[in-house]
Amino acid sequence: MSHYLNYAIQLAKMVEGQTGLNPPVGAVVVNEGRIVGMGAHLQKGGKHAEVQALDMARDNARGGTIYISLEPCTHYGSTPPCVNKIIEAGIKKVVYAVKDTTLPSEGDDILEQAGIEVIFRPQSEAESLYTDFFIAKNESIPEITVKVSCSLDGKQATDKGESKWITNKAVKNDVFHLRHKHDAVLTGRGTIQADNPQYTTRIEEGKHPIKVILSKTGEIDFDLDIFQLRNEPIWIYTQNKNLKTNIEHVEIIELTNCSIENILKDLYQRGIGSVLVEAGPTVTSEFLQSKFTNELILYYAPKIIGGSGNYQFFQSENIFNLSEVPQFEIVNSQMLEQNIKLELRKK
Amino acid sequence: MSHYLNYAIQLAKMVEGQTGLNPPVGAVVVNEGRIVGMGAHLQKGGKHAEVQALDMARDNARGGTIYISLEPCTHYGSTPPCVNKIIEAGIKKVVYAVKDTTLPSEGDDILEQAGIEVIFRPQSEAESLYTDFFIAKNESIPEITVKVSCSLDGKQATDKGESKWITNKAVKNDVFHLRHKHDAVLTGRGTIQADNPQYTTRIEEGKHPIKVILSKTGEIDFDLDIFQLRNEPIWIYTQNKNLKTNIEHVEIIELTNCSIENILKDLYQRGIGSVLVEAGPTVTSEFLQSKFTNELILYYAPKIIGGSGNYQFFQSENIFNLSEVPQFEIVNSQMLEQNIKLELRKK
Repeated sequence: MSHYLNYAIQLAKMVEGQTGLNPPVGAVVVNEGRIVGMGAHLQKGGKHAEVQALDMARDNARGGTIYISLEPCTHYGSTPPCVNKIIEAGIKKVVYAVKDTTLPSEGDDILEQAGIEVIFRPQSEAESLYTDFFIAKNESIPEITVKVSCSLDGKQATDKGESKWITNKAVKNDVFHLRHKHDAVLTGRGTIQADNPQYTTRIEEGKHPIKVILSKTGEIDFDLDIFQLRNEPIWIYTQNKNLKTNIEHVEIIELTNCSIENILKDLYQRGIGSVLVEAGPTVTSEFLQSKFTNELILYYAPKIIGGSGNYQFFQSENIFNLSEVPQFEIVNSQMLEQNIKLELRKK
Repeated sequence: MSHYLNYAIQLAKMVEGQTGLNPPVGAVVVNEGRIVGMGAHLQKGGKHAEVQALDMARDNARGGTIYISLEPCTHYGSTPPCVNKIIEAGIKKVVYAVKDTTLPSEGDDILEQAGIEVIFRPQSEAESLYTDFFIAKNESIPEITVKVSCSLDGKQATDKGESKWITNKAVKNDVFHLRHKHDAVLTGRGTIQADNPQYTTRIEEGKHPIKVILSKTGEIDFDLDIFQLRNEPIWIYTQNKNLKTNIEHVEIIELTNCSIENILKDLYQRGIGSVLVEAGPTVTSEFLQSKFTNELILYYAPKIIGGSGNYQFFQSENIFNLSEVPQFEIVNSQMLEQNIKLELRKK
């Protein structure tokens, strides 16, 4: 295992959530046992990670090795191909952790023909960084993460709808980081009506996600707190042709059919690469049943709520056979003070 | 706790061991919730971390915040003061984790007079990164780490001197990383004679340390393996005026008195900022008793060697009272497969 390749992956993780439809990528240039350049792709349209790192290294790149979290690109997009820049810089060896399955893969050949040694060194941490990105890009829909805070018995609220502060402050802070790392937060009309949430990122210099609200019928109370904050745009998806507002940062997007698929495709067209679903049982269950959700983050408070379970987070009209129920793999389990966080991927 | 400040500290750690007499420093520039620049100090004489990060950010730095692992400098050294660059770039807020006690500390005032908010946010991980650097710089001697591989009963070898492979491969690999992160490895004549070691860094693109050998009497066998490798210079400290060699990468340094203090001061003058002591009981014990050693790394193999203990790693002529024996704090304890690594600091 190379520590330099790990550094490149660390750099990629630092910019996760700020590159929109592009993947987060990090790069480190090494020459004679020293780092001579480092960089990351900072935003869509900006320099790629390799270029940032080579620009920092300048002449020190000559004869050196570049470590990259993702295979370097060979195409003219908003910027020229990275393989050209690598060749021009006089790099002698390229090491990368993940192959970019969304692009034609002739990069290795081009580099090798220029006399550069190319090493593809698979690394599981980097793979999981890009898995959902590749799926999303192929289908032109954003990466979806469903987040649920609930009791040990799987309820987001009591039967009466009381839900505030089920989980603790450590969870709240963790959710702020989740929001920071996603382009948009998506919820349903019912949730903003019931909870009056703001979906902000109260961490230092945090990036507020764009807020997406689903309201098929177009029933919306524009006096709620969420509409008073001007920090990021709010997009409302509806089938109601008559829904209008003159609140400046609120945009009404009318679709003939507000299916999850149609909404997600529209969001992707608008540059949204990642969506965090923070909603009540209806929207949450719809996403958990759809084929678009691969990642689920569950926060459990050590309480049991009971009642008849109006607010169980997963409810479906279908009664599945046990062999057909959605099945997950636990990627990570963590205590956040006295709450538990589980990161899961659909199997 | 700020994740951006943590990123700056991560960047500093990536360049640990490649900045010679300068401290490893990382910096991240943030604007509107996004990283717009990142950088580290890559080598003594090169750009400071702040400048690398601001160069990457360009106009995006204006109105932003810079997070730095160490207080920005205010003096003209090999490069102009970073505070000037920060002011010129239009930064509005500076956050740093550690105060540089080796420099006059008027940086906060200069920045504040330019209308910049300055936040000093102490962070223990960053403090431990710089503690020994400050001590070393104040005394003009390198940072010293003593490394010992031994049995559970504190022996580096059997009474007969058999010592190869006491610890396992995972330790060996960990030691390669230690060497990579230090400017020089120091040992005694007896150790190279007995063990014929090479003190290389067998990790990918690892940096080999300069090798320093102590031989007061000047007794040296130039046929040993260590003199056959040409990867880094070897410096031999001696009091023997007649010791000579024509091996190109070997330099004989004659001092009237080869005390640890004299050797360390000379090494510092030659640009050595950090020294790893990997030696037998005599040199190891001398360093452990000196006031210059603050850090001790112990690798224990789960063996007990017994015998009369010719090779106990700590032996002293003085018989200390128990209240006076050197006392340490355990900073970290880690299993490396079936061996134990302890990182300790002298109390």
